Amino acid sequence: MKILSVNAGSSSLKFQAYEMPEEKVLISGTFERIGIDGSFYTIKINGEKIEKNIELKDHASAVKILAEELINYKVVKDLNEIEGVGHRVVHGGDKFSHSVIINESVKDEIKNLSALAPLHNPAHIVGIEAFESIIPDATEVAVFDTAFHQTMKEDRFLYPVPYDWYTDYAVRKYGAHGTSHKYIAERIADILNDKHLKIISCHIGNGGSITAIKDMECIDTSMGFTPNAGIMMGSRTGDIDATILPYIVKQTGRNIDSIEKSLNKESGLLGISGVSSDYRDIEASRLAGNERSILARNMYVERIADYIAKYYVELEGCDAIVFTAGVGENNANIRHDVLNKLKVLGIKVDEELNQNAKGESLITTSDSKIKAYVIPTDEEVMIARDTYNFAK
Amino acid sequence: MKILSVNAGSSSLKFQAYEMPEEKVLISGTFERIGIDGSFYTIKINGEKIEKNIELKDHASAVKILAEELINYKVVKDLNEIEGVGHRVVHGGDKFSHSVIINESVKDEIKNLSALAPLHNPAHIVGIEAFESIIPDATEVAVFDTAFHQTMKEDRFLYPVPYDWYTDYAVRKYGAHGTSHKYIAERIADILNDKHLKIISCHIGNGGSITAIKDMECIDTSMGFTPNAGIMMGSRTGDIDATILPYIVKQTGRNIDSIEKSLNKESGLLGISGVSSDYRDIEASRLAGNERSILARNMYVERIADYIAKYYVELEGCDAIVFTAGVGENNANIRHDVLNKLKVLGIKVDEELNQNAKGESLITTSDSKIKAYVIPTDEEVMIARDTYNFAK
Repeated sequence: MKILSVNAGSSSLKFQAYEMPEEKVLISGTFERIGIDGSFYTIKINGEKIEKNIELKDHASAVKILAEELINYKVVKDLNEIEGVGHRVVHGGDKFSHSVIINESVKDEIKNLSALAPLHNPAHIVGIEAFESIIPDATEVAVFDTAFHQTMKEDRFLYPVPYDWYTDYAVRKYGAHGTSHKYIAERIADILNDKHLKIISCHIGNGGSITAIKDMECIDTSMGFTPNAGIMMGSRTGDIDATILPYIVKQTGRNIDSIEKSLNKESGLLGISGVSSDYRDIEASRLAGNERSILARNMYVERIADYIAKYYVELEGCDAIVFTAGVGENNANIRHDVLNKLKVLGIKVDEELNQNAKGESLITTSDSKIKAYVIPTDEEVMIARDTYNFAK
Repeated sequence: MKILSVNAGSSSLKFQAYEMPEEKVLISGTFERIGIDGSFYTIKINGEKIEKNIELKDHASAVKILAEELINYKVVKDLNEIEGVGHRVVHGGDKFSHSVIINESVKDEIKNLSALAPLHNPAHIVGIEAFESIIPDATEVAVFDTAFHQTMKEDRFLYPVPYDWYTDYAVRKYGAHGTSHKYIAERIADILNDKHLKIISCHIGNGGSITAIKDMECIDTSMGFTPNAGIMMGSRTGDIDATILPYIVKQTGRNIDSIEKSLNKESGLLGISGVSSDYRDIEASRLAGNERSILARNMYVERIADYIAKYYVELEGCDAIVFTAGVGENNANIRHDVLNKLKVLGIKVDEELNQNAKGESLITTSDSKIKAYVIPTDEEVMIARDTYNFAK
């Protein structure tokens, strides 16, 4: 059965077509700068990568081209061979604790949650409707980034703010990257052949979050009401003293929206280093001796270690610490330094395994009290799996 | 030598007179509601407590009455016997890493730091000047709440915000309760006869902060740029997702000052329970089965344990965890539950010692991997000591 896994952003659309249940990737690609000058798309098939420049005035045009290319590249003869389309949805609020088949009421709920994800949820609806019109017979499924975190208890998802901010305005911790953290939990359970584990999953990319998992359920996670909370990120602050905001408003005369933008776009690694929000640039720059990059990098490592420390105690121990996503999968130095800060917990990095990690790798010594792994994440296959389960 | 230890708030003035270096308290008291209807003062001397209602139109009137009472109660025959007056000052920014003799330039610095402590620093100046005019020959000393925390390194005191918020607007972590945390460090060093210890000092009162101390120096502390950050408190949030603020501004139409007030005055134990900001009320209410008080109390305990976990790793181990201040000294159940959450670190509470703790008490078993103590704090004697050292 052929399944499409889709991630529609405000000006982009990523897709991956699978043969299921074999989980074989047939074709993948990205449409970028939708509705903006200079739009283009890339397609990967049979080890080749093709890039084409073309005007994409909206998501519907992108989906129409995608449909043509699926036939053009002989992925399908007829669009109706696509029996399921799974959509990544950033925010499911506290309405969705697992994936669901999309119907009108699900679309209404996703729209209603737009106040919590103003950039993402409206874009998802546009994406969903574009596929509905072009492949009307496919089972459309919503896979929520927040769903995996719905098992958190209220003492962990509530903030110590006036209680009516929760009841009236839905202020609570929702978390993010749930599909990735769930994938990590499932991989570790397979590798260790045990579903009753205490896992600390570190999804460290340009954004990043750390999740404490027990018996395959999320106990706590570092992202908060919004994806600005938790660890320090590429351009986001992570946790700070919230009353910095009113102070900066008073000092600068800027409005709160502009300050919020600074917290999301001009902070984190970029804010401290002044160099870049991309960790690879920080790494190069700190190795060249840039003091602000060295500082940014130290802060980054410390804040990751802080969360692992906290979750180690919250879980009352830990069987596996896992690094995933862009930085987590690709930067051995970060992994080394984070784990080294945790050595009081009995963690011992195997530096050869760590430096040479490729694909799924154990990176600790045999006498380390906690195992640490690199596991490449795969949110797309998780979306395809959930979609296949509904469509089959 | 007779020394006065003074804490001037915006509408209050607390004092304690000592015979130094014996550290004998001669008299103590508080003036309240200064400049407000219904002002009064209380004096404690020779085990007696006297309360008097009298109009106190400003701090100068309170200091004048204090001077009269010192003679009236025969603490001194002549005011000039008071050779030093030590003032608690909430905010020393990054200008003061220890106590200093007050002169015009010190007063200017304290005034200049008012943006960082708008309620406190201006009140301290009023208090300082009232004593200057009535006991002009005494050595006046400023003892800063922030001074002990000035040993933090920049990777711990900086926030991942745009770097110019630090250079242009002094946004960084300052911490609070420094005089208390320093007192705790000195007591533990005396008790264990060792100045090279790793100590986690938990000052838990209506406000509260937790400090990681190594070799008698502050390494990190939970309060932040303002005293609103860190652990959950009586009516303050502690750490939250900062971008809740712009969201609540948009949702409610309230202005940022009003939201800031909610974060400081209507949050924490009060915000969650709806019952009270006083921990004793929460304790009574949760024991009576109030669900929101049970929730508030669980959140409170967890957030204290979270910080201890983080500092355990940051210090790479811990010799002593200390509980102090109102809740920390007086509530055995909180201490028990916090330490119980940390049992994965090898902590074992001795419940008999804990429940019967009076004064300075060890509360862990002999085989506990980390010792925990209750130590009543004494910021007043620290102020008197620093003042005596300058005045002698």
